[in-house]
Amino acid sequence: MAEFTLHCFAQSGNAYKAALLLELAGADWEPVFVDFFKGGVRDPEFLELNEMGEVPVLEHRDTRLSQSGVILDYLGGLVGSFAPRSAVERREVLRWTFWDNHKLTSYHATWRFLVNFAPKGAVSDDVIAFLEGRARAAMKTLERHLKGRDWIASDQMTTADLSCAGYMFYEDEFPYDWAAEWPSVTAWKERIRALPGWKHPYELMPGHPIGQ
Amino acid sequence: MAEFTLHCFAQSGNAYKAALLLELAGADWEPVFVDFFKGGVRDPEFLELNEMGEVPVLEHRDTRLSQSGVILDYLGGLVGSFAPRSAVERREVLRWTFWDNHKLTSYHATWRFLVNFAPKGAVSDDVIAFLEGRARAAMKTLERHLKGRDWIASDQMTTADLSCAGYMFYEDEFPYDWAAEWPSVTAWKERIRALPGWKHPYELMPGHPIGQ
Repeated sequence: MAEFTLHCFAQSGNAYKAALLLELAGADWEPVFVDFFKGGVRDPEFLELNEMGEVPVLEHRDTRLSQSGVILDYLGGLVGSFAPRSAVERREVLRWTFWDNHKLTSYHATWRFLVNFAPKGAVSDDVIAFLEGRARAAMKTLERHLKGRDWIASDQMTTADLSCAGYMFYEDEFPYDWAAEWPSVTAWKERIRALPGWKHPYELMPGHPIGQ
Repeated sequence: MAEFTLHCFAQSGNAYKAALLLELAGADWEPVFVDFFKGGVRDPEFLELNEMGEVPVLEHRDTRLSQSGVILDYLGGLVGSFAPRSAVERREVLRWTFWDNHKLTSYHATWRFLVNFAPKGAVSDDVIAFLEGRARAAMKTLERHLKGRDWIASDQMTTADLSCAGYMFYEDEFPYDWAAEWPSVTAWKERIRALPGWKHPYELMPGHPIGQ
């Protein structure tokens, strides 16, 4: 059995945040597939594992954690990769990780799900347009922040970058013209993509034909 | 000048999380009013203070923080109130604080804003209904979690309770029949309301007639 077990599925950018950290750090980890699209996160058995009904869930010895922000904080300290180097830096990392959860990932994940995976007509176009507006507002903040910077919360890559990048590699599932609309975000993504061991979420986690 | 300065306004439940901690802990703090309804968080001057364009912002000596989750983590440790007592408990506190930011506060804040404060017709009824559905799903998770428990992340009150309670005292601004629909949440709220020094957000922060 691997040292770290991650309950996840390929389409979850929140799970990808943790999976990518484990992979880039060269950790001994294995994914456990959660069949989200067949209601896997609402099964009583899964709710026993995580009452929040969400992936990722990380298991490591006696520790079981959910919420990508907590998992990143825990793993960063443990494997020594991408962890903040001071209390001040740690607060800046947490600050952008909270912002990501509240503003960037939340709207991107929901918008993308409704456009790409939900049954046609599950929600009205007004809802899609509303979520797109919110997602774009968050992207403007990120683009402004990354202009002239390499990394989000420090002069080196931290878990804040992993958090904010969670949904950014599903490029084709957003209607953005990435390089034209978000040049600084795109350059930052390319820095992450260039890291040794980087993998696309569909290759890194189970549940997508590419990764089979 | 007070030891802690909190940039806030009365209608912000995110700011209330920090304001209530400062007040309950008996800290030396003062609010600075941000005129959100006149675009105060989009002013270039405010964006200098917080590029995320959000309250709360806490200033304490050389430290300036935004994101309620980080401020709660910082203040809890500093004033010694509601802070976790171990690494395990700290992770559980963070876990519920992230969940709150992602699922509970995010949908409640946006839904409440559109229903109570936005111009009529600013968004369609479909958007309101969508946000209500998401908010209610989060409430179900919280209600289930609090059944048979006094506090969210520990056997004592922690900053996770303050985070999740951020919008819960604006009762009249949600269409819930609180006690009937959410009995465990209501009992938990009453435990918070009964704390010495508790104040309603409209009394604790500037910008509402009650607090003038």
